[in-house]
Amino acid sequence: MRKIAESTVRRLSLYLRFLEHSQGQGHTTISSADLARRGGTTSAQVRKDLSFFGSFGKRGLGYPVGELAARLRDILGLRRTYRIVVIGAGRIGGALVQYPGFRQRGFNVSAIYDSDPKKVGSRWNGLLVRDVGHLEADLKREPGDIAIVVTPADAAQEVTDRLVHAGVKAILNFAPIQLTVPSDVVVKSVNMALELETLSFALANR
Amino acid sequence: MRKIAESTVRRLSLYLRFLEHSQGQGHTTISSADLARRGGTTSAQVRKDLSFFGSFGKRGLGYPVGELAARLRDILGLRRTYRIVVIGAGRIGGALVQYPGFRQRGFNVSAIYDSDPKKVGSRWNGLLVRDVGHLEADLKREPGDIAIVVTPADAAQEVTDRLVHAGVKAILNFAPIQLTVPSDVVVKSVNMALELETLSFALANR
Repeated sequence: MRKIAESTVRRLSLYLRFLEHSQGQGHTTISSADLARRGGTTSAQVRKDLSFFGSFGKRGLGYPVGELAARLRDILGLRRTYRIVVIGAGRIGGALVQYPGFRQRGFNVSAIYDSDPKKVGSRWNGLLVRDVGHLEADLKREPGDIAIVVTPADAAQEVTDRLVHAGVKAILNFAPIQLTVPSDVVVKSVNMALELETLSFALANR
Repeated sequence: MRKIAESTVRRLSLYLRFLEHSQGQGHTTISSADLARRGGTTSAQVRKDLSFFGSFGKRGLGYPVGELAARLRDILGLRRTYRIVVIGAGRIGGALVQYPGFRQRGFNVSAIYDSDPKKVGSRWNGLLVRDVGHLEADLKREPGDIAIVVTPADAAQEVTDRLVHAGVKAILNFAPIQLTVPSDVVVKSVNMALELETLSFALANR
């Protein structure tokens, strides 16, 4: 497959949300203009984004809602469920475990780990906080598809190395450092302060 | 100023973090190779990123750490502090109010709002949860620089309209909808499920 930019993948996710919403309202076709509005883009961009993945819809008739939604779910890898493990039972970790948007997309948080004996054994949203010392043994028994790393910065690389060694191929990183992983592992970093800096940059450079 | 891609701005933030770390360790110069490692990129990209903003450093001697950090703080708008208001005292809102990385970058969460009478009047990390009905009056008295919207999807556009009307020019949106704002307002959206979908896409398309 051609290399697809992350910005394209994000728009595909937004299109899918809008398609599902439209389907729920009983619509069977949708125009590229409607999809563009939802994705914060132009009709031309919508057609270009979707053309990466074959031809959809008939000129002038719009896209068939159900068929396009199914195809986007395919493309985004959402025909299956994913086992998610969260490392770090701090405030952000706790919020993520309870995030309602995950389960409805098939992202099932199945375990949360911490190294703090005061946290291990407590329950977060019904999930038992496990000792991170058991990570490898647990992953051997129940492999994880995606790990969310929400540890302090100085623990993140070590725990990432352990996750990679235990076979995890995708990591969502909330720790404020750049993680080093082998080329067959994909990392996506989220840093709240960095998000705010894209805004302070915009405010400072208008 | 030339239009700078968001991916460039994010790398500048990462370079700044590494420069501050190096400064703390007593280093006075730094190579583009070191900055590249931290930003997850190449030396050539570092030189290109920094060339947008004038010339830094001497060929072969590396970049002067203190001077480059100060310049990046300028570029990123970090020479000042920002007043942040958070709308929505749910789980993610609560985690954000306590996020340690904000204050050290000059992002001061000064108020949190909710519409739920059970939450209004309670304290989150020392901050009183205010009634969102008072938003306009409060912003008139104490203008907000950046608003973080963490409401349910169906409340997000209305509260955004009110924020924009009250003069807020930058919004970080956690609600799972695309917000519509005037062209002089900048919105950055964060959606945890979308972040995971960039990973499921990567896993499905390897």
